[in-house]
Amino acid sequence: MAVMYDRVALIGLGLIASSMFWAMKRADLAGEVVGYARSEETRSTARRIGLCDRICDSAIEAVEGADLVILCVPVGAMDSVAAQIAPHLKSGAVVSDVGSVKRAVIDAIGPHIPEGVHFVPAHPLAGTEQSGPESGFAELFDNRWCLLTPNGADTFETAKLRKFWEALGSKVDEMEADHHDLVLAVTSHTPHLIAYTMVGVADDLGRVTDTEVVNFSAAGFRDFTRIAASDPTMWRDVFLNNKDATLEILGRFTEELFALQRAIRQGDGDHLHDYFTRTRAVRRGIIDAGQDTDAANFGRYPAKS
Amino acid sequence: MAVMYDRVALIGLGLIASSMFWAMKRADLAGEVVGYARSEETRSTARRIGLCDRICDSAIEAVEGADLVILCVPVGAMDSVAAQIAPHLKSGAVVSDVGSVKRAVIDAIGPHIPEGVHFVPAHPLAGTEQSGPESGFAELFDNRWCLLTPNGADTFETAKLRKFWEALGSKVDEMEADHHDLVLAVTSHTPHLIAYTMVGVADDLGRVTDTEVVNFSAAGFRDFTRIAASDPTMWRDVFLNNKDATLEILGRFTEELFALQRAIRQGDGDHLHDYFTRTRAVRRGIIDAGQDTDAANFGRYPAKS
Repeated sequence: MAVMYDRVALIGLGLIASSMFWAMKRADLAGEVVGYARSEETRSTARRIGLCDRICDSAIEAVEGADLVILCVPVGAMDSVAAQIAPHLKSGAVVSDVGSVKRAVIDAIGPHIPEGVHFVPAHPLAGTEQSGPESGFAELFDNRWCLLTPNGADTFETAKLRKFWEALGSKVDEMEADHHDLVLAVTSHTPHLIAYTMVGVADDLGRVTDTEVVNFSAAGFRDFTRIAASDPTMWRDVFLNNKDATLEILGRFTEELFALQRAIRQGDGDHLHDYFTRTRAVRRGIIDAGQDTDAANFGRYPAKS
Repeated sequence: MAVMYDRVALIGLGLIASSMFWAMKRADLAGEVVGYARSEETRSTARRIGLCDRICDSAIEAVEGADLVILCVPVGAMDSVAAQIAPHLKSGAVVSDVGSVKRAVIDAIGPHIPEGVHFVPAHPLAGTEQSGPESGFAELFDNRWCLLTPNGADTFETAKLRKFWEALGSKVDEMEADHHDLVLAVTSHTPHLIAYTMVGVADDLGRVTDTEVVNFSAAGFRDFTRIAASDPTMWRDVFLNNKDATLEILGRFTEELFALQRAIRQGDGDHLHDYFTRTRAVRRGIIDAGQDTDAANFGRYPAKS
């Protein structure tokens, strides 16, 4: 793969940024990758493990001369970071981000972007429950989707960023920002909130001990705990910044849940059976689309010989 | 391992029964294992793949002369199966089951058990989203818990069944039936209902296409679809037969969910952050207890080199 950007700046050095660095190196996509993180500890970890070609002690220093600047900070920090770096961006540079919410990020970053700089918002739909500079790996984006919400951005730079994400391993699609936020409320934000809630309930229930919850989690609950182990700051900001879509989907969710609850109370087995049969088909679609393994329990068990 | 029961009869030949067969063979725990399934198709599949030493065409034939009879049918079928086999049980035989609910199963099976036959209810907390006679494998129970709810059963036979489950690979604990049902409502039944609900909502939402849901599922939703792909009949019966505990935990769940929903609506970031930080610790406990992998995304990704 040829170098696509002479200098790339990563602002924020968590799971996504560190994975982007290793994926850029794998495909030789950048001349130099510079990085910055607010915490001194994160910066020294990055230096120790060789994350980025150069770690800067300020965001301003990191973006100077960069052709591509990617904001990899929690959604709630986008506004202040954009305000800080804006006067120091190189003319013709591209600013992008990896935020899980797009309308709020566009509203936060957009106004700070100076004339002659391009802003192309992006969201890679990839991650794990782990976080921090040591959690990244080059394969994170392989075969996963990255959604661009160009919002009127320059078409040449948008097309180039698309190629960049493809070279990182992703499949790329473009979407309108509000629709993105609704889709993600369904496929990500509401499931996370529900998982957090269920784990909180289990943790808080006096009549069932923590040891019981932990030991007997293999019957379904442990899958929820993986999701509910995700980064608290990132997720707080997601919910605060995708409020309307999340509340809408939550409303639909509780409506359906109450219908199933009523079926249980009334002993309506047909309703339950029909519902559970329909949801099984969705799983098949996800496996067929290559978005998950069909190995039992995600392959946690050895396969039958 | 020495033979523990000369003849074992498995009634119902799904994921659990077929895994028990392979695990019994692995440890040489039974002289002969006979099997029966209601469906002709399942019986011929079993014969084709060598599941069980002998497949019978009736439950009555299968239990005749058996020292251990294990009912591996959905909870809602326990009553009629028990009624059918009861007159044909060998004196001194042990009847057990693998139902996910224990109070209702005790009420369904208990009254049919003749004098001189022992009934020791059991529930192995193991499974995958797959079902049917071809889905089983010998390692399913390794390091997973099996809960016995003896309900006054003979202590010698209870201790022997405990050893049997340990020889299948399980860790074993004993519990009072009602407490079992509450614990499982938390660690299994309510999480399943919630996952089914969320997948149903996504499938049903006109403004987000099925293709979008499927393609963009990697952001959290796909974990729910795995759980929601479980056997519909089994799960219908679980909810119909653990009604009170499930409704109680659902009540607690919606209470918590509404509190988080309110925090989102009011922009209370501290409430959200505190909650998400607390739930992270539960995950750590499950990994430390050996009940899940700490590999990112359940190890679905290659590890960073």
